[in-house]
Amino acid sequence: MSTVAALAHTPEPPYYAVIFTSLRREGDHGYAAMADRMVELGSRMEGFLGIESTRDTNGLGITVSYWRDEGSILAWKRNAEHAKAQKAGGEIWYESYTVRIAKVERAYTGP
Amino acid sequence: MSTVAALAHTPEPPYYAVIFTSLRREGDHGYAAMADRMVELGSRMEGFLGIESTRDTNGLGITVSYWRDEGSILAWKRNAEHAKAQKAGGEIWYESYTVRIAKVERAYTGP
Repeated sequence: MSTVAALAHTPEPPYYAVIFTSLRREGDHGYAAMADRMVELGSRMEGFLGIESTRDTNGLGITVSYWRDEGSILAWKRNAEHAKAQKAGGEIWYESYTVRIAKVERAYTGP
Repeated sequence: MSTVAALAHTPEPPYYAVIFTSLRREGDHGYAAMADRMVELGSRMEGFLGIESTRDTNGLGITVSYWRDEGSILAWKRNAEHAKAQKAGGEIWYESYTVRIAKVERAYTGP
């Protein structure tokens, strides 16, 4: 997702992380526009704390979004426009992906 | 880290994730060799479950490593060669970074 090129500033733990790792198929097929739209839409959701996203030239991408609690994550998953993008993701854009929901217990920054 | 360009196959949760997000300074200064060496070394540690790592052309990188438990993470953090790389990271390679330790509670794959 081209719109996110910075580290997220999140509050003190505990909070939640959704770790989305994926391998892209070749070709854009509307992917970049969808990804930008999802960042825009997701970041306006209640309980959204931040997002970090990157993809290398091999097509491997990692997006981590941060959330106040599990309820916020569930509401975002069920958002109608996001649900449509999730469906298209499996059909068009992703060769394979993994979603992990994790509770952030500790965090520190450097240097 | 150029050696890791695939999704990790992790066991059923619960397990732990270390989410390392960073902004690189310009220039290699031995970074690529160190990164490869840390993947090689870390993946031989007791309790290591997998790693996913990617960096885009803006210098934003995300590496997520997966571990059986907190003890495994602590042992890796204290590994002498890794500790030396962590110190050099703050001095030479990273503009800024965040480390988050999170307990993976749920996971699913697709499509």
